[in-house]
Amino acid sequence: MKLFEDAIRNNCKVLPGDVLKIDHFLNHQLDVNLLSAGGEEFSRLFADKGVNKILTVESSGIGVACLTAIHFGCPVLYAKKVFGKNSDDALYTVKCFSYTKGIEYDISVSAKYLGPDDRVLIIDDFLAGGNALKALIALCDKAGATVVGCGTVVEKAYQGGGDAVRAMGYQVESLAKIASMSPEEGISFC
Amino acid sequence: MKLFEDAIRNNCKVLPGDVLKIDHFLNHQLDVNLLSAGGEEFSRLFADKGVNKILTVESSGIGVACLTAIHFGCPVLYAKKVFGKNSDDALYTVKCFSYTKGIEYDISVSAKYLGPDDRVLIIDDFLAGGNALKALIALCDKAGATVVGCGTVVEKAYQGGGDAVRAMGYQVESLAKIASMSPEEGISFC
Repeated sequence: MKLFEDAIRNNCKVLPGDVLKIDHFLNHQLDVNLLSAGGEEFSRLFADKGVNKILTVESSGIGVACLTAIHFGCPVLYAKKVFGKNSDDALYTVKCFSYTKGIEYDISVSAKYLGPDDRVLIIDDFLAGGNALKALIALCDKAGATVVGCGTVVEKAYQGGGDAVRAMGYQVESLAKIASMSPEEGISFC
Repeated sequence: MKLFEDAIRNNCKVLPGDVLKIDHFLNHQLDVNLLSAGGEEFSRLFADKGVNKILTVESSGIGVACLTAIHFGCPVLYAKKVFGKNSDDALYTVKCFSYTKGIEYDISVSAKYLGPDDRVLIIDDFLAGGNALKALIALCDKAGATVVGCGTVVEKAYQGGGDAVRAMGYQVESLAKIASMSPEEGISFC
């Protein structure tokens, strides 16, 4: 989407270590009008899929997931990294590897909110190596839910994670796909 | 709001230790239609305040903050508990005490996104002892921003945090105010 490419081109800094900082609309300040336009685009791209739940992971996916869900009229479920001590729920839990942080951690959802009746659109802010998407797909598999596709705001296409998930048979749509980036050369889109 | 009182009365469990579990629309699964109705109510309650920014804290405030901000047409800024190692931003940082977890932690915002031009509505999911609201107000004070009020989804009125913030001179509005609750007696609203 040109809106997102422009927002990235005009305001984002590429930092050393392959880091793209999108603090002004996605990862710290949230431009809800822009993200809602993105959510509307997802609702068009996945219009005929019978989506009845949006699944994301805390924290940075929650904003765009909510602003997508309002266009589908369905609830959001966000996977948590830590469940409260008071939780007595049955959980589905999978491992997720964070490329940025270099660590593996667990993410979980309550079994009460994900099951065979759910037709799930997975939404996240960033798609790079694809580990978060694969973990969220694995949660749906455990729950017997159907993944109808994945939508992400920014895909670092050159890292291959999106194509790996597409090769698993899933429709993956990204609002801005980055072909290459560096502090010296800037950002080019696919 | 009756909508919220009904959603709590019909679906929430009071657990031992003064814990109210609102996983089905607020703290795990997010009912975006309900939360958007709450956001619309906040936009009515703070209509004449010139709000141009919504401030919340990750993670559980982000959903309701976004679904409030769409009614104001302004951005959300969420305070973070951890900033990425790659961040070179100037930050405003304050201490926040978590009553639930019994620990004190830092929350921060980038100085770039909060300043004297901002008229801030603080939004959060829960209001109990008031520590999160006070920390968010302190962040605005550091940044020279104006706090025009606070909106929370659920206020445990009997804990006094809301009235403490009101006594500081702020307008605090809650969509459901709990007068008392216990596993045996259930929930009663103010």
